[in-house]
Amino acid sequence: MSKLETLADAFHDELQDVYSAEQQIAKALPKMIKKANSGKLSQALTAHLEQTKLHVERVASAFEETGKSAKAKKCEAMAGLIKEAEETMAQDADSDVADAILIGLAQKVEHYEIATYGTLCTWADQLGYTNAKELLGQNMDDEEKVDKLLSNLSRHANLAAKA
Amino acid sequence: MSKLETLADAFHDELQDVYSAEQQIAKALPKMIKKANSGKLSQALTAHLEQTKLHVERVASAFEETGKSAKAKKCEAMAGLIKEAEETMAQDADSDVADAILIGLAQKVEHYEIATYGTLCTWADQLGYTNAKELLGQNMDDEEKVDKLLSNLSRHANLAAKA
Repeated sequence: MSKLETLADAFHDELQDVYSAEQQIAKALPKMIKKANSGKLSQALTAHLEQTKLHVERVASAFEETGKSAKAKKCEAMAGLIKEAEETMAQDADSDVADAILIGLAQKVEHYEIATYGTLCTWADQLGYTNAKELLGQNMDDEEKVDKLLSNLSRHANLAAKA
Repeated sequence: MSKLETLADAFHDELQDVYSAEQQIAKALPKMIKKANSGKLSQALTAHLEQTKLHVERVASAFEETGKSAKAKKCEAMAGLIKEAEETMAQDADSDVADAILIGLAQKVEHYEIATYGTLCTWADQLGYTNAKELLGQNMDDEEKVDKLLSNLSRHANLAAKA
């Protein structure tokens, strides 16, 4: 086991985690897009896939101030979230209900990222990693916006699912 | 595979998920409390353990309007979050750094719940499950408050970890 002596060690460890998480999301999103029935949802997830690719790049750049090269460490939490999403998507749901469920799954993923970027930004601030804070803050803002967009879509998807 | 024909089916499925998640958290928290070094963090997590036991009861009551009995379905996402937390806690960290990490892990758990209760409350509202919406809304409020409290503690824990 590695020793986390300083906050800089913890930051580096967490950055490796989110680097893996973003990569896992980039891999999982195409399956979610394929499963979306509503055009608006498909569009939102497709835009988020492009954004996720940018997030991977930003996280890679955020490694610079740590003095260590960009490396992913498997994020078990995201693996669990995606496993759950795949199991749920495998269920034979009606199209509107499937969309409502898909939105809920995507929002869980978003919230994992919001929590992680929140921690990383606090730590980057305290470590004086100005560039990393800026980059990770941009990712966090994106995730929060997507979460809100999905909440809005949810109201429509759910109303349709109810009818 | 079960078929999710209606939003009511999806709600019931998700309720089984969060029922499992809360039970997993109630089991994991004592290990986190044991690992906390700061008195304030230990206190906050202990209070949250008591709250979590109440959350389990509220979720059980929220099943009533579905007309089905309370049953948990293993939440793979929470299992992943807890696996990650245990692996991280097993690392040999200095005490202040360990607390900063612990807070970050707890906030990931909180955010999973915030996302899940958000979806459940929206669906309960649309399904006319008034009582369930009230109970799950109370749980969501608690999780949001704990998340904010942890953010505040984080600033102190992190500053100590930096020194």
